[in-house]
Amino acid sequence: MMLSDPAQKYRPFVAVDLPDRQWPGKRIEQPPIWTSVDLRDGNQSLIDPMNQERKQRLFDMLVNIGFKEIEVGFPSASQTDFDFVRTLIEQDKIPDDVTIQVLTQARPHLIERSFEALKGAKNAIVHVYNATDPMFRRVVFKVDKQDCVQIAQDATRQIRDAMNAAPETNWTFQYSPELFTTTEMDFAVEIVEAVMDTYQPTAEHRMIVNLPATVECATPNNYADQIEWFCRQVKNRDTLIISLHPHNDRGTGVAAAELGLMAGADRVEGTLFGNGERTGNVDIVTVAMNMYTQGVHPALDFSNITPIMREVEHCNQLPVHPRHPYVGDLVFTAFSGSHQDAIKKGMTERREHPDAIWHVPYLPIDPLDVGRSYEAVIRVNSQSGKGGVSYLLEQEHGVELPRRLSIEFSQVVQEVAERTGREITSQMIYQAFSDEYLERSEPFALASHRLWSEPDSPKVNLEATVDIDGQRQTLSGEGNGPLAAFIGALASAGHEVEIIDYNEHSRGQGADAEAVAYVEVRLDGKAIFGVGIDDSITSASMKGVLSAINRHHSTQAPAANVTSNTLA
Amino acid sequence: MMLSDPAQKYRPFVAVDLPDRQWPGKRIEQPPIWTSVDLRDGNQSLIDPMNQERKQRLFDMLVNIGFKEIEVGFPSASQTDFDFVRTLIEQDKIPDDVTIQVLTQARPHLIERSFEALKGAKNAIVHVYNATDPMFRRVVFKVDKQDCVQIAQDATRQIRDAMNAAPETNWTFQYSPELFTTTEMDFAVEIVEAVMDTYQPTAEHRMIVNLPATVECATPNNYADQIEWFCRQVKNRDTLIISLHPHNDRGTGVAAAELGLMAGADRVEGTLFGNGERTGNVDIVTVAMNMYTQGVHPALDFSNITPIMREVEHCNQLPVHPRHPYVGDLVFTAFSGSHQDAIKKGMTERREHPDAIWHVPYLPIDPLDVGRSYEAVIRVNSQSGKGGVSYLLEQEHGVELPRRLSIEFSQVVQEVAERTGREITSQMIYQAFSDEYLERSEPFALASHRLWSEPDSPKVNLEATVDIDGQRQTLSGEGNGPLAAFIGALASAGHEVEIIDYNEHSRGQGADAEAVAYVEVRLDGKAIFGVGIDDSITSASMKGVLSAINRHHSTQAPAANVTSNTLA
Repeated sequence: MMLSDPAQKYRPFVAVDLPDRQWPGKRIEQPPIWTSVDLRDGNQSLIDPMNQERKQRLFDMLVNIGFKEIEVGFPSASQTDFDFVRTLIEQDKIPDDVTIQVLTQARPHLIERSFEALKGAKNAIVHVYNATDPMFRRVVFKVDKQDCVQIAQDATRQIRDAMNAAPETNWTFQYSPELFTTTEMDFAVEIVEAVMDTYQPTAEHRMIVNLPATVECATPNNYADQIEWFCRQVKNRDTLIISLHPHNDRGTGVAAAELGLMAGADRVEGTLFGNGERTGNVDIVTVAMNMYTQGVHPALDFSNITPIMREVEHCNQLPVHPRHPYVGDLVFTAFSGSHQDAIKKGMTERREHPDAIWHVPYLPIDPLDVGRSYEAVIRVNSQSGKGGVSYLLEQEHGVELPRRLSIEFSQVVQEVAERTGREITSQMIYQAFSDEYLERSEPFALASHRLWSEPDSPKVNLEATVDIDGQRQTLSGEGNGPLAAFIGALASAGHEVEIIDYNEHSRGQGADAEAVAYVEVRLDGKAIFGVGIDDSITSASMKGVLSAINRHHSTQAPAANVTSNTLA
Repeated sequence: MMLSDPAQKYRPFVAVDLPDRQWPGKRIEQPPIWTSVDLRDGNQSLIDPMNQERKQRLFDMLVNIGFKEIEVGFPSASQTDFDFVRTLIEQDKIPDDVTIQVLTQARPHLIERSFEALKGAKNAIVHVYNATDPMFRRVVFKVDKQDCVQIAQDATRQIRDAMNAAPETNWTFQYSPELFTTTEMDFAVEIVEAVMDTYQPTAEHRMIVNLPATVECATPNNYADQIEWFCRQVKNRDTLIISLHPHNDRGTGVAAAELGLMAGADRVEGTLFGNGERTGNVDIVTVAMNMYTQGVHPALDFSNITPIMREVEHCNQLPVHPRHPYVGDLVFTAFSGSHQDAIKKGMTERREHPDAIWHVPYLPIDPLDVGRSYEAVIRVNSQSGKGGVSYLLEQEHGVELPRRLSIEFSQVVQEVAERTGREITSQMIYQAFSDEYLERSEPFALASHRLWSEPDSPKVNLEATVDIDGQRQTLSGEGNGPLAAFIGALASAGHEVEIIDYNEHSRGQGADAEAVAYVEVRLDGKAIFGVGIDDSITSASMKGVLSAINRHHSTQAPAANVTSNTLA
């Protein structure tokens, strides 16, 4: 069945007329006031809402992250929420610089109950809303515009009076015209101004006007247009804190928050990782870290983001997706060979210029800045190339493959990856490397060797004990150095080997240091690599030569001959 | 540990200068060309890339959804991909109106291998890219601008010649300046124009210029500015198909695609549900369904979205998040009481005007349009109110509570929800309803009754057999109707009951039809509801009266006395 024609059922969003909009030329240069609504909007959307213990854990974590405004519940509608607010206040669990916020409908007994919940709080925001959207007015509440304004003004008056009656609390008043984005814009201004007339905010004692995109219903530029239009039209803008409350029904909640801030808003309500009704509230973590990567400190601390994610997953009993920006298990991971190669080069450059501006390919943020390591950045599957294999061998096993060897070996790994169809771990890579290059002892194995030079001679003399096809033999040779002497000794026994290339480096430090030698030789006209590892740099290089000979003997097509069980 | 000052390490994105940008005043009025890159960009980002069987399943599903362009792999870099492309072609698995696309680096042997993979295809896009981003030029490839242009032109020439040599295929050429968004804009135009000079596209035989946001690095308006600027600057715009390829590192990939389309792009590359490297490619499902809710048919078919999600989860071995737009398990769900109440009213209105434009509170799309039902829309937890409880009883159990009864009963349910701390299913609600109103048989239970009227008398006579405290008694009464007669009969035995309100409706149809009677009575000065269900309308109403009496006898505070085990 094909989707039916949507033109019969849906209409395009009617944009506000703002041809001289300024926000597209702006950028975000300072963080907004952040308000967490995890414990209210987030909580009410959970299959199993939080109990007191989970609520308290999340509240404490929000405080630690740096939130100064936290909506803690809807106490007039839920006994659990009421009890939680009372516990916070009576047990003195709210830092002096943190303001708690409660939501209430614009109904007298619910407002009264909300003030009961807040009694004794040091700092509190009373957040009242009523529905201004025309469909809600008509279908849900059956009120006209005048009734709607009256409801808002009556609630404001009651709240103002209740605040005046309890001067021991630092009160802030917040009003939301509900479903702002689908309310007629001129009516949104009209009702907000009526509320302002009743509350009388000043530049010194501002009120919060929250403009929710309760349901996201258009491309995010429309929200920005509405915010800019509202900020220009409303009177006494300097007495208001303009607040955004985006949802994510169209998957563009983060963009709506960002463009809304560019359009002049002062404050963002959202949740950690975007929990909330339906598709969720805007994800404050992403908005904040997006600022961070532009050089703007968000004034929230996500420097150790993984434990925050785990705690939120516990409190919400919902997972954070593996591709969630900045925190998902896979977001700092590159499987593609070309990406891996570029990251490897970028990381090398960064090690040389650690104080430069961050520019590492495919990593928009330094994983260390959110407490992630580089270990998981490179992961190898059948789509990976030599870059990832080399990176993992180098980072995790101290093996720095020469370029041609890395090409040769990556074919071994890719063949394994395609055959198994699974991710290849660095342990599997090292096992394949060891099986292919280090563990072969047939037909040649080095037993021991002795090196010496005669006085006044530039030559090095070598006597090597080598098992060949199980027979122990002693071979002698001389040369300009140990490797040449070893080649000479092999030649004297009829084994002709030509050295093409040679690299050696140390691995580890101090008493544990080892030498890793990579030797490319020509045998029967064919170039082949061998690798040797030993405490002694000379033994390592000789083992490398024998590794190449043994590989040559064992197979004509080494890359195809690694059997899967060696990697199991 | 607080996040360190990012100003030392990160710089704001440098915006393109476009004060007279036109895109913010545009909207999306037709779908773009959609290109799925699930089998390439998506696949290469998987922990366990797809095997042939999973690839084939996903390919077939993409075709069924309506994709006409599908990037099937990177055959020159992966034997699995090569084999898959060969299988598609040799086994004739590609519909005639579908074009397959392969990606290749701008290197001669990889281009050659790509054409080997495509041999015999009816329609094919060869997609070549090279890195134009300055950091990539300097650090990764160590080339200058001139080298970079040369690489692109050489590759284009080779591809053009290979296309000319195989005229049996309908070829399309695609070029991507890699990391377009971080390339100097004038250089992006320069290199694209150099490629155009070599390839010579025409308005009849256009080439695709893909402008990837390979890593999302700025607010999405910047991408739109870049696209509009590029479209204005590049020569012979009418010979080009401008393609978007957004990633989601900042969580705004969908917005980038939408604003990019408003800025003039013709085509979008992305994946189902946003799989892809790191945070993923742009989610084509969301972009498409966003168009749908604005009345624009996306030309892709997601009318049965849940099986598509399950299949993608199988192929990718990654979950789709429960809050993912249009498809997540929770996105059509309302737990909040006020939301539920509004949805209930909106749905009632919709039943009365089924052909009107879709306007149901909190539901940006009709769940039926993506093959979801209304059943899961309303779910009840401790944050819910009477709206949800009433809705579920009505929708799933045919019980239409009168308003005051719904208030009384919602307190029973909320108390249960808060005590258990879990979601309350409709079965649990009905069980609570039944335990509270229907199953009580102490002290009063109706055994049988007889009704008759005398000739010419307006009165109804009743003889009712009732068990009272286990003693069977026969009571007689008369009245204007059966209920009045029953009240009279009770009074004659010393049980004074006053009827306040009475509602009755049928449930079910035909032979299975039952009557449900709601009776509000006053007992000892207190109002209390009772409910009776019976095949007979008269028995139902009498049972309703006895239900109220029994509830009154059993408790003074019925709402608090439902024990948790009755709901277990």
